[in-house]
Amino acid sequence: MIRIALDAMGGDHAPREVVKGAAKALREHELELVLVGPGDILPRELKKYKPDRSRISIYEANDVVTMEDNPTSAMRRKKDSSIAAGMNLLNSGQVSAFVSAGNTGAIVMTALLTLGKQEGIERPALGIVLPAPSASVLFLDVGANADCRPSFLLQFAYMGSIYVQRAYGIDNPRVGLLSSGEEASKGNKLVREAHQLLKESDLNFIGNVESRDIPKGIADVVVTDGFTGNVVVKSAEGIGEIFLSLSKLRATDHRYRRSVSLLMRPALKAAEGRLLDYSGHGVALLLGVKGNVIVAHGRSEAGGIKRAIAVAKQVVEQEALVALGC
Amino acid sequence: MIRIALDAMGGDHAPREVVKGAAKALREHELELVLVGPGDILPRELKKYKPDRSRISIYEANDVVTMEDNPTSAMRRKKDSSIAAGMNLLNSGQVSAFVSAGNTGAIVMTALLTLGKQEGIERPALGIVLPAPSASVLFLDVGANADCRPSFLLQFAYMGSIYVQRAYGIDNPRVGLLSSGEEASKGNKLVREAHQLLKESDLNFIGNVESRDIPKGIADVVVTDGFTGNVVVKSAEGIGEIFLSLSKLRATDHRYRRSVSLLMRPALKAAEGRLLDYSGHGVALLLGVKGNVIVAHGRSEAGGIKRAIAVAKQVVEQEALVALGC
Repeated sequence: MIRIALDAMGGDHAPREVVKGAAKALREHELELVLVGPGDILPRELKKYKPDRSRISIYEANDVVTMEDNPTSAMRRKKDSSIAAGMNLLNSGQVSAFVSAGNTGAIVMTALLTLGKQEGIERPALGIVLPAPSASVLFLDVGANADCRPSFLLQFAYMGSIYVQRAYGIDNPRVGLLSSGEEASKGNKLVREAHQLLKESDLNFIGNVESRDIPKGIADVVVTDGFTGNVVVKSAEGIGEIFLSLSKLRATDHRYRRSVSLLMRPALKAAEGRLLDYSGHGVALLLGVKGNVIVAHGRSEAGGIKRAIAVAKQVVEQEALVALGC
Repeated sequence: MIRIALDAMGGDHAPREVVKGAAKALREHELELVLVGPGDILPRELKKYKPDRSRISIYEANDVVTMEDNPTSAMRRKKDSSIAAGMNLLNSGQVSAFVSAGNTGAIVMTALLTLGKQEGIERPALGIVLPAPSASVLFLDVGANADCRPSFLLQFAYMGSIYVQRAYGIDNPRVGLLSSGEEASKGNKLVREAHQLLKESDLNFIGNVESRDIPKGIADVVVTDGFTGNVVVKSAEGIGEIFLSLSKLRATDHRYRRSVSLLMRPALKAAEGRLLDYSGHGVALLLGVKGNVIVAHGRSEAGGIKRAIAVAKQVVEQEALVALGC
């Protein structure tokens, strides 16, 4: 059975929602979980949700990296953090994947130093799967590298292409480069130089794509630097939140709920599902390190944790993150 | 009476929607319009909408800059374009503002060369006003400068602060710097250096802001480089479009329309108004050149053109774009 380590102290709603999400995941999936965190808190939390104790264990780690911690100093000072301990479990092969909703910078840096980079990869990247009308889009980097060189973006494109082939069976995936316009001349210096590299590569490079076209699914993989990617994902969240609140308004109106015709319901449900994904419920993957690291959103509640665990299980089964650089 | 020049050939739906928008604007506002474009097309278009001919005239310019044209070569080859002619009318004082929904790069470059920069400003910036719950947010640069130096961002912050003081009467406006996290250490190299400059300035700098917080109105002015700003605005458009289509779905459902309670309607309307703004109906201002240049969205229909003309009139009345650099 697949064993996955889960950072019980990661995220804004840890440990409560993390432990709750773990219990949910155990009910729906065949897997074993290792909850990593303080020995005085976790047994108490765990009791509340009555999970199948034969498939969940606690691994003690008593330091906690907060969302505000500086990654470098957190790594130096908090050697017994749940992030460090979980990553060690992964590195020693005691688990097949590590899931955390914690401090992204600390997760990326700990993964780099503990697991190491895959061959041929200068920098690992955080990728997020976004919903599109007929398939999904892998968007990377969404935050691992604020400053990128053109060669990093080329490598992100290779890693992303291999990933979507394995995870979604997409042959010859279409790769787009995020820019401010479709023409090769558009974009900043980094983008114009990366455009040339991608054009000369053997990837199925379809050229520059604009951020408004990502949700339309015009590419299977879209690459950008980690600063721009992070800002784009968060701006989508901001807009998504406005409309989530609009949807909630509607949902509280009984006459509205009763009146929505049966014919409309599937379309509404599909659109609202996409809204949910764009409102910060996405799960990110760390591509390019030697191990399966899955990053849940910092604001994840139990449902988000459960989804991240499901993604981790799938990644292990498909070996989707292995040797992306060769 | 205020006279405004309008690029009749700018945008995806020119000249039809531009001329229609001009006629609408004349009915609602006291102003005079000068339609700039080909002499063989405009009189015919104009007839369709029966505007008050005493307040609208045609200024002939027979070259057309397309949305795909390279700005530099368009300026060299198309000397009699509606953009060049409109900018000359503005420069010679025959009109007080120029409105175009055309090729943004060409508009910015023509403005720079024809009107010149304001004192103390290294680069002009495109600013867009975004809706927030209790006020508006000026977001800049959204596309004039793909590659920025830290000093440019500082100047954008000064220009933006003066603008929102004049346009909205906001004293001591809060300035935010777009980044991937609130801490000063977050962001790419450009952002970290700009953060220092802003901190040392006499502006009301509130620190880094995340893109998801812009719609919440946590700052009155948010600055970023033109590449990131452009990508953020377009990603908001992409998400906005999904929800616009969702709203249209609902609007075609008669039972839904009949059933929405009277109490809910104002809230829905307000939220959908913000949705509309985030779906690419914003109007952009060019800050830092010697003249009032207003850029409507390239996909503007008549309503968007009318709104851009209204913004132009307001900018002229308030002298909101004058001497932003001193």
